[in-house]
Amino acid sequence: MIIVMKQGAGKAALDDVKNRIKELGYKPHVIHGATRDVVGAVGDEKNKDVLQTLEILPGVDSVVPIQKPYKLASLEMQPEPSSFELAPGVAIGGDNFVVMAGPCSVESEPQIVEAAQKVKAAGATVLRGGAFKPRTSPYSFQGMEEDGLKLLDAARQATGLPIVTEVVNPRDVDLVYKYADVLQVGARNTQNFPLLRMLGQLDKPILLKRGMASTIQEFLMSAEYILSGGNRKVVLCERGIRTFETATRNTLDISAVPVLRQATHLPVVIDPSHSTGHSAYVPSMCYASMAAGADGLIVEVHPCPEEAHCDGAQSLNPQDFANMMAKLRRYADVAERTL
Amino acid sequence: MIIVMKQGAGKAALDDVKNRIKELGYKPHVIHGATRDVVGAVGDEKNKDVLQTLEILPGVDSVVPIQKPYKLASLEMQPEPSSFELAPGVAIGGDNFVVMAGPCSVESEPQIVEAAQKVKAAGATVLRGGAFKPRTSPYSFQGMEEDGLKLLDAARQATGLPIVTEVVNPRDVDLVYKYADVLQVGARNTQNFPLLRMLGQLDKPILLKRGMASTIQEFLMSAEYILSGGNRKVVLCERGIRTFETATRNTLDISAVPVLRQATHLPVVIDPSHSTGHSAYVPSMCYASMAAGADGLIVEVHPCPEEAHCDGAQSLNPQDFANMMAKLRRYADVAERTL
Amino acid sequence: MIIVMKQGAGKAALDDVKNRIKELGYKPHVIHGATRDVVGAVGDEKNKDVLQTLEILPGVDSVVPIQKPYKLASLEMQPEPSSFELAPGVAIGGDNFVVMAGPCSVESEPQIVEAAQKVKAAGATVLRGGAFKPRTSPYSFQGMEEDGLKLLDAARQATGLPIVTEVVNPRDVDLVYKYADVLQVGARNTQNFPLLRMLGQLDKPILLKRGMASTIQEFLMSAEYILSGGNRKVVLCERGIRTFETATRNTLDISAVPVLRQATHLPVVIDPSHSTGHSAYVPSMCYASMAAGADGLIVEVHPCPEEAHCDGAQSLNPQDFANMMAKLRRYADVAERTL
Amino acid sequence: MIIVMKQGAGKAALDDVKNRIKELGYKPHVIHGATRDVVGAVGDEKNKDVLQTLEILPGVDSVVPIQKPYKLASLEMQPEPSSFELAPGVAIGGDNFVVMAGPCSVESEPQIVEAAQKVKAAGATVLRGGAFKPRTSPYSFQGMEEDGLKLLDAARQATGLPIVTEVVNPRDVDLVYKYADVLQVGARNTQNFPLLRMLGQLDKPILLKRGMASTIQEFLMSAEYILSGGNRKVVLCERGIRTFETATRNTLDISAVPVLRQATHLPVVIDPSHSTGHSAYVPSMCYASMAAGADGLIVEVHPCPEEAHCDGAQSLNPQDFANMMAKLRRYADVAERTL
Repeated sequence: MIIVMKQGAGKAALDDVKNRIKELGYKPHVIHGATRDVVGAVGDEKNKDVLQTLEILPGVDSVVPIQKPYKLASLEMQPEPSSFELAPGVAIGGDNFVVMAGPCSVESEPQIVEAAQKVKAAGATVLRGGAFKPRTSPYSFQGMEEDGLKLLDAARQATGLPIVTEVVNPRDVDLVYKYADVLQVGARNTQNFPLLRMLGQLDKPILLKRGMASTIQEFLMSAEYILSGGNRKVVLCERGIRTFETATRNTLDISAVPVLRQATHLPVVIDPSHSTGHSAYVPSMCYASMAAGADGLIVEVHPCPEEAHCDGAQSLNPQDFANMMAKLRRYADVAERTL
Repeated sequence: MIIVMKQGAGKAALDDVKNRIKELGYKPHVIHGATRDVVGAVGDEKNKDVLQTLEILPGVDSVVPIQKPYKLASLEMQPEPSSFELAPGVAIGGDNFVVMAGPCSVESEPQIVEAAQKVKAAGATVLRGGAFKPRTSPYSFQGMEEDGLKLLDAARQATGLPIVTEVVNPRDVDLVYKYADVLQVGARNTQNFPLLRMLGQLDKPILLKRGMASTIQEFLMSAEYILSGGNRKVVLCERGIRTFETATRNTLDISAVPVLRQATHLPVVIDPSHSTGHSAYVPSMCYASMAAGADGLIVEVHPCPEEAHCDGAQSLNPQDFANMMAKLRRYADVAERTL
Repeated sequence: MIIVMKQGAGKAALDDVKNRIKELGYKPHVIHGATRDVVGAVGDEKNKDVLQTLEILPGVDSVVPIQKPYKLASLEMQPEPSSFELAPGVAIGGDNFVVMAGPCSVESEPQIVEAAQKVKAAGATVLRGGAFKPRTSPYSFQGMEEDGLKLLDAARQATGLPIVTEVVNPRDVDLVYKYADVLQVGARNTQNFPLLRMLGQLDKPILLKRGMASTIQEFLMSAEYILSGGNRKVVLCERGIRTFETATRNTLDISAVPVLRQATHLPVVIDPSHSTGHSAYVPSMCYASMAAGADGLIVEVHPCPEEAHCDGAQSLNPQDFANMMAKLRRYADVAERTL
Repeated sequence: MIIVMKQGAGKAALDDVKNRIKELGYKPHVIHGATRDVVGAVGDEKNKDVLQTLEILPGVDSVVPIQKPYKLASLEMQPEPSSFELAPGVAIGGDNFVVMAGPCSVESEPQIVEAAQKVKAAGATVLRGGAFKPRTSPYSFQGMEEDGLKLLDAARQATGLPIVTEVVNPRDVDLVYKYADVLQVGARNTQNFPLLRMLGQLDKPILLKRGMASTIQEFLMSAEYILSGGNRKVVLCERGIRTFETATRNTLDISAVPVLRQATHLPVVIDPSHSTGHSAYVPSMCYASMAAGADGLIVEVHPCPEEAHCDGAQSLNPQDFANMMAKLRRYADVAERTL
């Protein structure tokens, strides 16, 4: 922590700050600047939250944190990129580029099985599909719940594709764990800490979406909740942040990819469907994700988007998905990624 | 829904849209414009989500929703402002102005009892205090949990002040219900729909905070989750939205007050502490909230802010709170509010 | 400047940083922290921009500025609030509360004269009206230009009200100066530095609006452009920032008032019309501005809003303005302001 | 325009709206909906601004614009992508991919000539360099002005590279025109309409940067200012928008590329330097821009970034730029672009 004093704060104020720093178990270190003093508080971070309140002392201008609040997620802790299996034979991280695809929500057995077959044929290696759907309106379709999970299982058996599906309620963790290969945390639950804590106890990978209003640092702190519980298989998913622009559903923060690369060892995937909200924009964002250095994609594909129960406007149809994948493979060659 | 056709979209495309509208159970109504056609889809909203996907049909430019997605929360449903008791003798809505105050988190019996006595003496009629704390970092103090609830109960018994406290996990709803007079939903859980559904089953009031990235319309949809479960005692709380400005913790959207007044009958309170993040800015925001027409405040007050376990920098000390209340009463006279 | 080293950055990297700091004319001061070192660069700010580039040196994590970039605008430079006359007899700052009112744009002599009479009758002491209108569309009404200025002059002569009007082009500064009592810089020109430099040469007050994407610090830096030219009569105007919320035209950042109070001696006024964009929300925002501690308002009032050439939806009609003023006076009593 | 009536607005209110629409020269067309009526106003857009004010009539809920406000920029006006020469032999649009590179600001003859030689050797075909620098602080280096333009000319003569350089003041347009091949409008001047109008009179291409708070639609309206003056050679430049994320200087809105592709025929380039603000993030954003479908890049390259007068932290050094270009060429092959 760096405590910045006000210009003209006197010796008494400075002494107060130094004493308070000592009381909290830190060592104060003063730099007398040209126009104002700053005080470094040297020590570990146990009382970081309390240090922050020094800002209300007389003569203090502001308190600036220096240390990164995440540890297990940091590249400083683990300099090599993490790589692990999402399911047997499907590794993420390193040179792999993983495409997860499927409909927004599971609607029926023919729908999810057809989706699984089509995305597999085009090269996807994980099937996505929602059984529990967090919807803005209580009057919208909320997902098929356990019946949906069973249909995902049927699609997995029909195609061999592992399944990533969302869990929204701590009470459903055991149920979703039973069916899913990868458990997804949606953007609305990025800071649902009780849920994250439970997922930290599991031995299956977690796909953690960034919240619409989460900074990259907060996003990593959410990952830290899972990691600190013991589950080291966390995949970060950038899915668009909320901005003033309305031409897209959200704004895909593509530069989060290189930022995360310099901050964390965890793999990073992109969701071009929820971020843009319109299928016409999805393929170019898939290519851009590959070129930006992402480790994978999670893309919405529906056998018949115009009949989807939700988010049809952002779903690719199987043919457009196959076309995208063909071109994506060529970009993968340049990016030296195995797709 | 209004379906806007592209300029030059031909008759075939228009017919497709009309047919699809009919299939979905709506009646199409075409307006031939100067440069493009628009088609109204007349009918109730059951298939609204599917109508939205018409945007992927050839010749369609965009789909514009017309109806408001919230019903029970709307002023059209109930033109008179809602008024109800937070606890016996403490009504919100109408001419009442309710000040809820107390520390960010319960830390000890002396701390919470002293806080309760001080805020009561200054005129607060509800005690706030967190027992379950959603914290960005897994390494930060997470609250005293049930022990904290018991201390809140002790403070209630010592002062007679009813209690508002946060619930973050659906699994804790019964527990929190047992102790709280008003259950609070924090900004990170505004779209925690399983939690909202459970709160919709209760007979105690809910203080629902706006999410940092929630539009006002989404905020009302979250209220609608609770209302549609049968619980009509929902208090909306504006607590700052996330913007590019960093001088304050978040940006207090004070104009949400008149916007909500024209949209809903539900009472609206302001949290000047979390929105600004600095105690020095809190009193003026309390006065502004009163003048803007809010129905109340929820303010952080700590007996000794510089020793608070969390958020000390934004907490008023008892004396500053008392001074604020004294001036607030004078504003209440002009606003014709009972404080 | 504080240079934060990476965890594990070795001695060589630290020495490089220290040497580079010396080369730039600063004195390095190292604090050895628990997990990383930080280096203070002590000295004046002449090479601040170059110091910032130290972040690309090996071993450097980030560079944190400590000093405030504004000087003349700062409260540290001048601890007492500025107070000056906008025109003879109309002072801003101190206990005064100044209401500037009038139409968005000057449209005709009867329109502007009627507007001036009506706002004067209700208690406004400055007439606003645009002759040069920066419009998003090249096809929209762009203002009456010099003819508009002449009509403003006519309205001034008819009522005695001084005039605030916008200048958008450095080439028009002399022209606008000739007619205006106060020259306004619009939100789109907050960082139009050539224009600001010219206004710094004038001896008339400048009403400087905050840009839609300007942080408060950048806003003060724009003021600094004017102040550093020698013109100390700068009035800051908060008029809403751009956020994700669409219920209002922009989001009124009301907490900018107390933030600016602690940062600068310059007077601060609020524009409730452009920030909200809807006349129904304007009165409550006027009251909130007074209670928040602003020094004044600039409000759009049109004799017949539904016929306004621009921004009619956000203009009050004269009766609603008079009603607002009546109530505002009662709030002024509590705020101890002379209105 | 679509005028949405309030639920329960009676016949009188509806008749008022219809009459007012007729008075303004439009034809009203009513759709009686399930819960509320909507009225289409059919006709050209001359009175669009006034139509918008119908929202203040009793019974009106909101007014929704349907027509796109830009015409000359729209794909509906010109379905084929624009292609034109930035300078003899350097075309933009179509299959071309143009890389403009050079330092943020011109600092000396050796600096700019070396930069020009290095970026040319690596494959750039346009030299960028600022002679007029809009800086947040009046105390920062403001550019070498005409001397800088002369040095740019020297670098052009030494290398044959055409020059893109910024103009910030309408009074300097003639001067900059004399030296520049392409005139750049910076992010702070995207809505500097007097400047845009002047540039609309020129016969040289304009590189128009998106404002930090400009929606894509507003960005196109700014282009429309230039186009409507007669200058059809406008290149759009996405350079990051302002969001809550602070890990990057701004947030690169990469999905603006496909959005603009569907909205306009104008070429689109990306500025990865100002958007990210850190050189380490620049190469991956260059690749992503190519893959997303952009028509070019404008990249900061400085012979010695750690000594740059401004923005050194975001500048590539010549070697890193050359490495980036080598890989970019391989991405160009997949994207079927000539680089």
